[in-house]
Parts: sequence; C-alpha cells; structure tokens
Amino acid sequence: MINETMYARGAESSIIREIFSYGLERKAQIGAENVFDFSLGNPSVPAPAAVAESIKKALELPSDQLHGYTPAPGLPQCRTAVAESLNRRFGTSYEGKDVFMTVGAAASLTCTLNAVTNPGDEVIVIAPYFPEYRVWIEKAGCTCVEALANEDTFQLSVDNALKAITDKTTAVIIDSPNNPTGAVYTRDTLTRLANVLREANAQRDPENPIMLISDEPYREIVYGAEVPWVPSIYEHTIVCYSYSKSLSLPGERVGWILVPNTNPQAARLMPAVAGAARTLGFVCAPALFQRVIIDCIDEPSDVEAYARNRTALTDALAEYGYTYVEPDGAFYLWVKALEPDANAFCERAKKYELLAVPSDSFGMPGWFRLGYCVSYETIVNSLPAWKQLADEYR
Amino acid sequence: MINETMYARGAESSIIREIFSYGLERKAQIGAENVFDFSLGNPSVPAPAAVAESIKKALELPSDQLHGYTPAPGLPQCRTAVAESLNRRFGTSYEGKDVFMTVGAAASLTCTLNAVTNPGDEVIVIAPYFPEYRVWIEKAGCTCVEALANEDTFQLSVDNALKAITDKTTAVIIDSPNNPTGAVYTRDTLTRLANVLREANAQRDPENPIMLISDEPYREIVYGAEVPWVPSIYEHTIVCYSYSKSLSLPGERVGWILVPNTNPQAARLMPAVAGAARTLGFVCAPALFQRVIIDCIDEPSDVEAYARNRTALTDALAEYGYTYVEPDGAFYLWVKALEPDANAFCERAKKYELLAVPSDSFGMPGWFRLGYCVSYETIVNSLPAWKQLADEYR
Repeated sequence: MINETMYARGAESSIIREIFSYGLERKAQIGAENVFDFSLGNPSVPAPAAVAESIKKALELPSDQLHGYTPAPGLPQCRTAVAESLNRRFGTSYEGKDVFMTVGAAASLTCTLNAVTNPGDEVIVIAPYFPEYRVWIEKAGCTCVEALANEDTFQLSVDNALKAITDKTTAVIIDSPNNPTGAVYTRDTLTRLANVLREANAQRDPENPIMLISDEPYREIVYGAEVPWVPSIYEHTIVCYSYSKSLSLPGERVGWILVPNTNPQAARLMPAVAGAARTLGFVCAPALFQRVIIDCIDEPSDVEAYARNRTALTDALAEYGYTYVEPDGAFYLWVKALEPDANAFCERAKKYELLAVPSDSFGMPGWFRLGYCVSYETIVNSLPAWKQLADEYR
Repeated sequence: MINETMYARGAESSIIREIFSYGLERKAQIGAENVFDFSLGNPSVPAPAAVAESIKKALELPSDQLHGYTPAPGLPQCRTAVAESLNRRFGTSYEGKDVFMTVGAAASLTCTLNAVTNPGDEVIVIAPYFPEYRVWIEKAGCTCVEALANEDTFQLSVDNALKAITDKTTAVIIDSPNNPTGAVYTRDTLTRLANVLREANAQRDPENPIMLISDEPYREIVYGAEVPWVPSIYEHTIVCYSYSKSLSLPGERVGWILVPNTNPQAARLMPAVAGAARTLGFVCAPALFQRVIIDCIDEPSDVEAYARNRTALTDALAEYGYTYVEPDGAFYLWVKALEPDANAFCERAKKYELLAVPSDSFGMPGWFRLGYCVSYETIVNSLPAWKQLADEYR
C-alpha cells in the first residue's frame, strides 16, 4: 500500500519551490528582468574554469576507469585529496580513510543521521533552520527538537540548546555559516556549546555521547569572519560538506562526510556511515566529479561577487528602514517582515515582483529570507521596489 | 548512539567485495594478466563515443544552467526524452511527467520500495537474487520473502511466487534479464505471474494491489530473446532502470523510475516516489549526466562484445563438463559448483587464480556466478585453468 508519509512529503509543496514556480510563471508573463526572485539558493557565480578543464582532461582516461564504479567511500586519491586539503587549512592529521565521498550535502546528512541515531531518539536543530533537516530527522524515526537561536545576533544560544537536551538527545545539527540567517558561530559560542555537551555526556553511557553534526556547505562563503574548525573544539563531531556552493556545482551532487580520527568513536562510526549509505541506496558519489574534486579542491570561491551583492542590498534595505541580520557568511539575508505575519508580508511583496521566502518553514515566524546569490543587476533593479514596499507600510 | 544495524551493514564484507579485494592483491603479486577475475559486474565495454561528445557539448552551456540544481524529478527535456524513447520501443503513450530521474538503479529501488511499502510488509524476491534487494527491503522495515526460481530453467516459478504471497505482500521484485542467472522471463511466464497477482488482488482492498517492481538495468544486454514490456502485461507495475550497463556508466549514477500512466494508482504513486527520494536525501540526478542521457538515449549497447565472451566461455565450460544455465541476457553465467558447497568450490578455484562468487549470498546454495563483462583475453586465457579445475574433481 502506498506509504502515506512518503506521499505527503512528495505532495506537499515546499514553500520555496512554490515561490520559485510562481516566479517562473511571472517571468514568462512580464519578462525575466522584471521579476526579482530571491527565493533560491542556486549559486549565480559560475563554477571555476578549472572545473571544465578537469572534465576535459578526465575524458582522456579509458572509459571503464573514468565511468566505472568507484569504491563505495570514493576514489582513494579523492579521499586523500580532501583529507590533505583539510590538513593544510586546519592543522589536522586526517587521512583518506577518514573521508566518505557522498552524493552531495543531503546525502551527507541522511547517511550521518541514519548512522548515529536509532528510532525514538531526539535530534536538536538551531531555529531558524534549513527545513529539510526536519524531513530527514523524521525519516530516521527521530524527533526534531528546535532550540531557538539568540534573537538579536542569531548566534546559537547555548542556553536554549542546553534546555533542549534530554536523555534521548543523540545529536545536534549546526550549520555555520548559517542558512537562513548568514550567522557565523564564533569560537566562543562553539566552545561554550562543547562544554555543555561534555557536561551532558558525563551523565551518560560513554558509548552514547551527544554527536555534533556540523553541516558546512557554506564554509568558504564568508566575509572576513573566522569559521572555526568544529572537530578541534568538540571531539564528538562529524562534518558534512558539499561542493554545491563553494564550486557552484549543486546539480552534480558531490560532497563528503568526515569522521575525524580524533572522534573517540571513529572506528565504529565510519562503518556505520558506510552501512547507512549502502542501505539508503547510495552506491558511490558520481565518478567523474570525484576526479573534478581532486583537481579543483583548492580553487577559491568567488566570494567577491556575493560580497558586492550583499553590500548593495544591505545598504539599501537599511536606508529604507528594514531590520536585518548582518550576514557574516553564506548568501542569505534574514530580514524582519514589516508586519507580524511573514506570509502576508511576502504575499504583499509579490505586488512589487519581489519574491522572498517567509520564515515560518524555517521554524520561526515574522522574518523572511532573501537569497542574494543572484545577478548584481537583479539586486540593483529591485531596490526601488523594496523602497516602495517599505513606504507602503509607513 | 551508533545504529548497530547500519554498523553491521557497513562492517560486513560483501562477499563480492571481498573477492574483488583479494583479486586486487593477487594481481599486484603475480601480475594482472595472471588473475582471472570474474567477480564483478563492472562493464568492460567502453561507453559509446557519443557520451564524451555530449559532455563536451554540454560544457559550452553557461555554468549555472549546466551545473545548477535540476528539478527534483529531473530536467523536463530529459524526462520527455526517456518517455519518448519508451514510446518508440513499446508502443506506449508515456509523458515526461511519468518519469522520475534517479541517482542510479540502487536509488530507483530504494525510492520505489519506500514509496510503496509500510513497515511490517513483505516483499517477494525471486531466488537467486541480487543480494542488495534484501538490504533495501529490510531498511524499509519490511521482510524479504524468497520464492525459488525454476531450478532447471531459472525462469521465475509462478507456483513458488503464488506460495510466497500472503496478506502482507506488498510488492514482488523481478529483474529480467536476471542477475545472477542471465535468465530472461518469457511473455508466458510474466502473463501467468500477472494472472496470479490479479487473483490475489481480487481478495484485497482495491487500494492495496500487489505492486510488481521490474528492475531492468540489463534490458538492452540480451542475445536474441524477447524482453517483454512488463507494464503492458501487469497494470500495477513500476519500472526501475539505470544506464550503468547499457551505456557503461555505472560510476556516474543515473537512472530512472517509470510510474506508467496505465498504473491505476499513478497519480498517488508519483508523489510517493518523490517524497521517498526527498526523505532519503536524493536532491536530483547528476545534472551533467541528465544532459548526456538526452543525447545518448538511443545509443545501442555493444552486445556483440558480451556475446563473443559468452560463446567462448560457455563452449569451453560445456566441453570441460560444467553445468550452467544458458544465459539469454545480462553478462553473468550461473554455473553449478563441482561440489555441494559453493564456497569450498570457489576457494579451490582460487588455486588456479579463478575468482568467482559463490551462490549463497544470492539466496541459493551450490552454484557460482561468473561476470563475463571482462576482456576477451581474460576469457581465453582462463580456459586452461577451468579445465584443470574440472579435472581435479574427476
């Protein structure tokens, strides 16, 4: 019999997808240049030129070497390249065996969640949070527990995290730089979180420490702030990563899970991750793009383009009287709606062809998210509309 | 706490992977040309030249168009290309909306199983069967029920399938051409199976018919036999496909699920498939290879190369006194072990540098599987060893 939960997950329109579809329709009606679509997180910056070069080079390999199955955890030279890149940047001593290549960030998260949880467990997320976290946590049979961020800075609130911890807490998911707020968690915040988790662990079975899942697809998209290396701060950390944003390859589905060799449970965690990948239906990360990662691993992200968008947008919105969180990273701006109901506000914004995502699906009412990973022209051309919308509320 | 089931799934060495690893070691010791490795299903035939041409052409697209997220069910033009290709071949009237692009056959199966089952259900497989079926069925919370094939022809035994059906049966998985036997199910067999399933359905809630999941990665690898189009024979069919074998792209992870528009539950099945994909962590099939599929969908598979291997291998094994199933499709030969314990037999074969997979993990004792998707030279050079091994048992 058709699984009703799966049916509901497929039938429910994600609010983001709904707005995106509306935008496509509207663009067809009045011209793409007249619609200001800030709904998505699809990078506007092109992939580095080295990506195409790497693909062309790979095409010289024999077909069975290039397109054949890779080992389930990835090509050994790709896993080593990832480990060595991390070692260069964070002074760590990882090896290829600590890295499991995945089919992108979503796969990194579902494999990790299925590896470290059992049905009935609780997983804490920091609200506002990426809505799919809840979907993946619930599919693993666990309860998604929200711990509200600090409402001024949108730093993780260690007090709220502490309040959310119970005997059933298995893991905490953080993503910094954060989607949707752009907040980057400071070393001080993370250190205090680690201390709270260690105190909780002291009361528990040593085989059952609280895992910290650090989801880091935006690590390289940052405007000067330090993004601390989480495994150096809390030993029971697993890192999830994707090249979707840093190399602008979201459609190619390639990322990794790092089980740091400093994690006391590493020897048992890595087989659990591999088992989760196997049972969920992930055979290996796409082979060609594993080779691309080897070649392009240290290609810089074009943060300048996003920084320019960010400045243009925040300067103008500040002038028009909007309240927002100054984003230290990622390419999202988290803005307070000009009326209590963010849905009503975003609906009204449509009159000005402004498309934004209301905050409710992120686990917090009253705000909206703007993805500024759009062209600079879209930003500049949208500004009069943002002003008119603010004027309407005066 | 680490999930023990996932740990076990990752820690247990798949027998196939174990033999493959042994082969790599042995090749390093005595030279690759002296080890006759028939353990894997990695195609030896190169991908068609059109694949590289298509990739080069795609690289001319703007990066965000090429590498951006595709819609979750796939690029509209890719879904349409798949539907139209099926319509040309099977006289059907499918549309793009009936096709859901996936991250390969494993994803096709896990998404389908999670869409059509509920925990506690039973799913029937035809033994011998691809061992991962059990892993995926059990991850969905269901019981894997084995129905033995006909032991002479290795055609599906409709009688055994009938005996396996209970009130809890949700689905039957078939794959024809079959891995591991190479059997191709005849139209007569499939028609009788359909009748049995319809009779069972007549006793059940109309919303809960038994689904037939037709896993068809080997559809194009066939030596003259008809591979009937299953949805034309049984209305409650879902088809799972992958380009791993037909286009020799196993590492690139691209395939599809077809929910035929003739399936009475199609309107609810497709959202359930989409929901399963979303919750398991599949965001979209790799974008670049979706474009490759559009360009290469009707590229013929190089069946001649496999046919030549098949003839060389079967002619010789027959001469040496081995009993095997004449394969009508796929690139596997299913051979009776020369002693009752297939594991002991395969262990003894190693003395002659012959690597084969014993049949136990496929759900049937006493046989072994040879993947003849190797070079023709490997086949020819292995023949004296097969003869010596047979002589040893005389």
